[in-house]
Amino acid sequence: MRHIHIVGIGTGNPEHLTVQAINALNAANIILIPSKGAAKTELADVRREICERYVTNPATRFVGYDVPSRQTADRSYVQSVDEWHDAISATYERLFLEHLTERESAAFLVWGDPGLYDSTLRILQRVVARGKIALDYSVVPGITSIQALTASHRIPLNLVGKPVQITTGRRLAESFPGIAETAVVMLDGEQAFSKIDDPDAYIYWGAYLGSKDEITIAGRLADVSERILATRAEARARHGWIMDIYLMRKGQDFDDLE
Amino acid sequence: MRHIHIVGIGTGNPEHLTVQAINALNAANIILIPSKGAAKTELADVRREICERYVTNPATRFVGYDVPSRQTADRSYVQSVDEWHDAISATYERLFLEHLTERESAAFLVWGDPGLYDSTLRILQRVVARGKIALDYSVVPGITSIQALTASHRIPLNLVGKPVQITTGRRLAESFPGIAETAVVMLDGEQAFSKIDDPDAYIYWGAYLGSKDEITIAGRLADVSERILATRAEARARHGWIMDIYLMRKGQDFDDLE
Repeated sequence: MRHIHIVGIGTGNPEHLTVQAINALNAANIILIPSKGAAKTELADVRREICERYVTNPATRFVGYDVPSRQTADRSYVQSVDEWHDAISATYERLFLEHLTERESAAFLVWGDPGLYDSTLRILQRVVARGKIALDYSVVPGITSIQALTASHRIPLNLVGKPVQITTGRRLAESFPGIAETAVVMLDGEQAFSKIDDPDAYIYWGAYLGSKDEITIAGRLADVSERILATRAEARARHGWIMDIYLMRKGQDFDDLE
Repeated sequence: MRHIHIVGIGTGNPEHLTVQAINALNAANIILIPSKGAAKTELADVRREICERYVTNPATRFVGYDVPSRQTADRSYVQSVDEWHDAISATYERLFLEHLTERESAAFLVWGDPGLYDSTLRILQRVVARGKIALDYSVVPGITSIQALTASHRIPLNLVGKPVQITTGRRLAESFPGIAETAVVMLDGEQAFSKIDDPDAYIYWGAYLGSKDEITIAGRLADVSERILATRAEARARHGWIMDIYLMRKGQDFDDLE
């Protein structure tokens, strides 16, 4: 049966690779490399650096492929993502049939961790469900941007004994402040932090975490919100893209415990 | 100034070590190794294996130390933890003064990630705040049991575009089911999942994740709850200790999206 390694590679620092990830990459017969737009060439460079630095198996074949783009016209969001995942799963199926014999294995390099806001796993499950090709797969965990964020700011993710909410910009106001003393926001296209009006909230923000271009800003939300907005806009314009994340916190360790 | 590396080492699989962690361990002049009770000797073995396998710097010194135990009699929880953290920080201070010259560095090996339900960072901040010794520190992220859990079960942590709550057993019922479609429970001494009465909830449970003794069980909560309770009790009795974690899920990708 063909085997697929879904390998988490961390957030842009090649040293985020785990020994398990390096071993999985070297165990794979082929490594699948997506062609992405020119905008994120820095990410493509990191991926290339990871392969050059860690893939020491001389038999490894590298196979590039075009990722289908998501169509959004005249479709609901769910239809759009559903069609898109289907198109990608068809691409995967074709790649496996063309490039892998029945006893060979392939590896995908996934930013961060394959479990967190990534769909490689979901898409592979579609290939399996379609049943045209016998397939097994395994997941290698990777350092997420959440961990890169708290490490760079040298803060704990949680207050003592307290919960943490991982959420999206669109949903931040549902849980913070109020339900969660700590909220981590990923996938925020609208800078939802700037709409939170709370004098006691703190924010720990980071962009391009782990990479040489990393930027971090922390402070009372009211004091640093404008600076984050300006820094983010400038960096995004300069790079042509941005990946950022932030942690919002209210309260302190032991606040309401006795 | 003395420098302290707080190094995340993953959850019991020595291959969870990142290249960054390996480099930090080899950069440190001393590596601090806590003496723990005999019950968790498997964990001590993994720590030793990590050092033997990855610390290649012949100049590294290993320094053992006794971890003060937490006193709970005649104290509130907060007083108890506060005193305990103070006692540990005094131990750290003494270790740094005795074993490090002013330009040397030390490393702590922290299970999982130093940001997640771990207090090494908080305790070092106490040493810094006390001001008796000039100290800088940095954090190296590590694979958490959350990532080990989702990797072993080969599931995404989040539903598409949905939040995730990381919480404790004592607080599970506050957020699940209801607020969060996905709740991850760490630090659960009371098997809070067994008190959730919801026919549509799924659970993905794991113990000793990443280690050779790893156990995982998944299924509808109503179908597997008893089996998890029995498996957990048996494993705990056999090992003399247990570290487990679980993910509770209700609903599916795209459930309430259009």
